[in-house]
Amino acid sequence: MNESSASAFSVVMVVRDYECDLQGVVNNAVYQHYLEHARHEFLKSIGVDFAAYTEQGINMVVVRAELDYKRPLRPGDEFFVGVRVERESRLRIAFLQEIRRLPDHAIILKARIVGTALDARGRPRLPKEVERILKSWASGVEV
Amino acid sequence: MNESSASAFSVVMVVRDYECDLQGVVNNAVYQHYLEHARHEFLKSIGVDFAAYTEQGINMVVVRAELDYKRPLRPGDEFFVGVRVERESRLRIAFLQEIRRLPDHAIILKARIVGTALDARGRPRLPKEVERILKSWASGVEV
Amino acid sequence: MNESSASAFSVVMVVRDYECDLQGVVNNAVYQHYLEHARHEFLKSIGVDFAAYTEQGINMVVVRAELDYKRPLRPGDEFFVGVRVERESRLRIAFLQEIRRLPDHAIILKARIVGTALDARGRPRLPKEVERILKSWASGVEV
Amino acid sequence: MNESSASAFSVVMVVRDYECDLQGVVNNAVYQHYLEHARHEFLKSIGVDFAAYTEQGINMVVVRAELDYKRPLRPGDEFFVGVRVERESRLRIAFLQEIRRLPDHAIILKARIVGTALDARGRPRLPKEVERILKSWASGVEV
Repeated sequence: MNESSASAFSVVMVVRDYECDLQGVVNNAVYQHYLEHARHEFLKSIGVDFAAYTEQGINMVVVRAELDYKRPLRPGDEFFVGVRVERESRLRIAFLQEIRRLPDHAIILKARIVGTALDARGRPRLPKEVERILKSWASGVEV
Repeated sequence: MNESSASAFSVVMVVRDYECDLQGVVNNAVYQHYLEHARHEFLKSIGVDFAAYTEQGINMVVVRAELDYKRPLRPGDEFFVGVRVERESRLRIAFLQEIRRLPDHAIILKARIVGTALDARGRPRLPKEVERILKSWASGVEV
Repeated sequence: MNESSASAFSVVMVVRDYECDLQGVVNNAVYQHYLEHARHEFLKSIGVDFAAYTEQGINMVVVRAELDYKRPLRPGDEFFVGVRVERESRLRIAFLQEIRRLPDHAIILKARIVGTALDARGRPRLPKEVERILKSWASGVEV
Repeated sequence: MNESSASAFSVVMVVRDYECDLQGVVNNAVYQHYLEHARHEFLKSIGVDFAAYTEQGINMVVVRAELDYKRPLRPGDEFFVGVRVERESRLRIAFLQEIRRLPDHAIILKARIVGTALDARGRPRLPKEVERILKSWASGVEV
């Protein structure tokens, strides 16, 4: 199994020119947008709609982000954003994400994003769909 | 021929959550990003690469934008951005663009973006590929 | 009275590097952000807080934007965004905005942004503070 | 000396409405823009202009970012971004940054951004102005 296939979920995207800055490459902050979009698509795939949850007063929040920038993406580059999750603590989940260029799979960025969810009363509680996926992955179903 | 098929070129996109603002809908400025991305994809399809041209010192610039906002896009909405071009004046081109939601084709936004290109000496001159497409469209090949 | 002082309200801002794109100048869409920020600051100055109104279910929306790009802003440029308002129709207001570079007041962009406000039931109605300012300006107090 | 004054350099900013997302708070990626802007202002204050360096073929790049999100910023919040630097390795510099709300100095975010600079031939080399400030700070002049 090659490294890139280790992500249980991935989204393919293409760099848009407006995402690039003075240096002619994707701006550092934009990668967080890519990562967020892939996380939200992953969550949607397991039944958790970020926008719908927000409307219901459940706020999913990032508490820590670690990003290792390996290589820049350039205008028009195609890439995928991979997502894996693991439990960080009882109330926190870690998203292990990577961005790889296509078609050569060159590593662009590796990230570890730790998040939690706050219910309508502001108390941390992971959505049950997230609990379920954490359990199934821990039991080896996916990897 | 229905109205939406009147665009000779179109790009399909999906609203990403980070593109939405306080009101829960896509922020007004983001539509300009969608329009720009579709224009650049259209230009690429006729052999004009915005980033490559920029590196060569040829700057394609917008001189006027008119946008009619009809209906907002919401998180997760799929939509397409259509592009048609017509000559505005000897040195200017007008992009007639529309954004329609999928699958119902509800009109979201209509825009008319007027641009030109400045060569390395800062003088306006449309790229020859753009001249060619303007001529072929004017002769009725596409419409 | 010089042209730039014709704006009854203005906000001074500075170009941030991340707002510039491949061409080394402020990206076209970013000017809409500048214009929006200045409109919201103007509205706040007359007692209309966009975020608070949104929370109360009153959505101020743009229905049409016309932007004339005259000259690009570059990294580090200081500029101001001027705002004037006039009634467009019974339920619509037009913001006449311009962006000028500092200190030379060179014109960067002129815009006319037409908006309205939708109450909690989705019906258009301008906030009373906006009605008041439209009346006072029409009576010549400000111009 | 209180904690917030430990930053040798800081920039005051205000949250703009368009920087807020569905959740009604500043979007996670936007904090990277705030941090970048403060770093570039800091660099400018010691004689290193990011845009000018980029034009000369010297690219300052981020290789790692660590961000701890403590509390969200909301529409209209005033805040400052503090910057301190320390040597990470011979060719790398670490920016220790924090964002604090004004006027209460509540901590919003803490970050550690590691960067380097690549010369025109793509070889890492810190600008001499950065070397100078690292030396003066290490010798206790500033702290």
